[in-house]
Amino acid sequence: MSRTEAITSAANPLLKSVRRAIVRGELTADGFAVAETFHLLEEALRSDCEVKIVLAAASVEAAVEKHVRRLAGIKVATAPDALFQSVAGTETSQGVIALVRPPAWTLQQLFRGRSLVVVLDGLQDPGNAGTIARAAEAFGATGMMFLKGTVSPFNAKTLRASAGSLFRLPFVHGIDAALARAALQQNGVEVYAGVPGDRDRAVPLEKADWTRKCGLIIGNEARGVSREMRSAALDVSIPTVGVESLNAAVAAGILLYEARRQRAREG
Amino acid sequence: MSRTEAITSAANPLLKSVRRAIVRGELTADGFAVAETFHLLEEALRSDCEVKIVLAAASVEAAVEKHVRRLAGIKVATAPDALFQSVAGTETSQGVIALVRPPAWTLQQLFRGRSLVVVLDGLQDPGNAGTIARAAEAFGATGMMFLKGTVSPFNAKTLRASAGSLFRLPFVHGIDAALARAALQQNGVEVYAGVPGDRDRAVPLEKADWTRKCGLIIGNEARGVSREMRSAALDVSIPTVGVESLNAAVAAGILLYEARRQRAREG
Repeated sequence: MSRTEAITSAANPLLKSVRRAIVRGELTADGFAVAETFHLLEEALRSDCEVKIVLAAASVEAAVEKHVRRLAGIKVATAPDALFQSVAGTETSQGVIALVRPPAWTLQQLFRGRSLVVVLDGLQDPGNAGTIARAAEAFGATGMMFLKGTVSPFNAKTLRASAGSLFRLPFVHGIDAALARAALQQNGVEVYAGVPGDRDRAVPLEKADWTRKCGLIIGNEARGVSREMRSAALDVSIPTVGVESLNAAVAAGILLYEARRQRAREG
Repeated sequence: MSRTEAITSAANPLLKSVRRAIVRGELTADGFAVAETFHLLEEALRSDCEVKIVLAAASVEAAVEKHVRRLAGIKVATAPDALFQSVAGTETSQGVIALVRPPAWTLQQLFRGRSLVVVLDGLQDPGNAGTIARAAEAFGATGMMFLKGTVSPFNAKTLRASAGSLFRLPFVHGIDAALARAALQQNGVEVYAGVPGDRDRAVPLEKADWTRKCGLIIGNEARGVSREMRSAALDVSIPTVGVESLNAAVAAGILLYEARRQRAREG
């Protein structure tokens, strides 16, 4: 049986801690990630992540109890719906927030076998970042880097858009470009930078060789890949018509799909 | 020169009309779409859409004047920043909202030459819908259908995520499944339904023939394509590992990319 406690005050330390993490788009002070929705709670459990506590709106308490029943020892705290909403700040949390210990990875764990490492370089939108993590796992990427100046992997919206992939895919965050470049180079990785389709001298994605060890840099939604990262990479583009560029997550998804396609063909 | 008027009251009819359209995720009562950000204003102008008026926050008035300078006759209304924010309801509007007359299309205009028609069937997220429109234009789709029960193409967030593609790509909205099926059939279109990668009997996207006239159905984020639409379509999937599914916009982007790839190869 899980243990349930009832929260009644907005000054409750757990509520305050969760609220602060959501507003800052970061981990709680004690190192837990804010995972909203039943689906993400399920994903945390199936990924064997430690769930410290589940915070539930009173109206969904029964459903939460049902979800956590299988795991003895997970604590549940309930709060009246209005109090819960004041913390979640979104109408789509489904009334459930799990505090999840994210796996910790070393930089070297991103590289294994025929590495395929996704590097986010200044990407700002948490939905895009999480969506890219989901595609990265789906197409066999071995790891992901969130460079300094990129949205946090622990932003609740990033985590949610990843649909659980950030509970499984090795990643590091907050590292600077020089370190990222050194790690890519030391691991003998060919680095590609995604650029809009109309750029001169960019290699169309099909002509790039994705069967070797690869890194793929996805840049800021408006400015693209930084000069520092781009100088160490080969520009790769997706041929398009009519538009200036694709959405960053769609572009990343297509580039990763092409990598998987080439690798599957080669076997 | 553009004509500028100053709005000072929250009861101003223009403000009320824009606020209502944003909240409802629809056109204004007089049939204009809410286009936020400078970029979308630029896209409306380059797409030769009628811009009825541009509403600007006082602090960005000079920048707006610069953008609309080229087109004599566009009216500009300015409002104090706080009043503007109360309407825009987003911190990322950049202080500019254009009311744009969307092009009107007939169902038949979606089909031309070797048609490639994207059908949104119950998709809910405006960001996904707009992102798919952007990818559809980028990969040479000839048109798009927003079936009944799908987020509106005129939701300000849809329009914004489309990055202007919905000012150019022919689309119809609010039509029911029976009419959509009839139109696809009458135009001799092979219809594919996007389904998650683990489905039995789904055809991997590379094995599907995208060089003929095609329709591509993208379903609801949680439930997928409706039974009614799926019964008239061939299931097509994107092989993945580890994840249950891809984000709907990423999946649509990859399927459209594959269509363009096959068509470009065939010439």
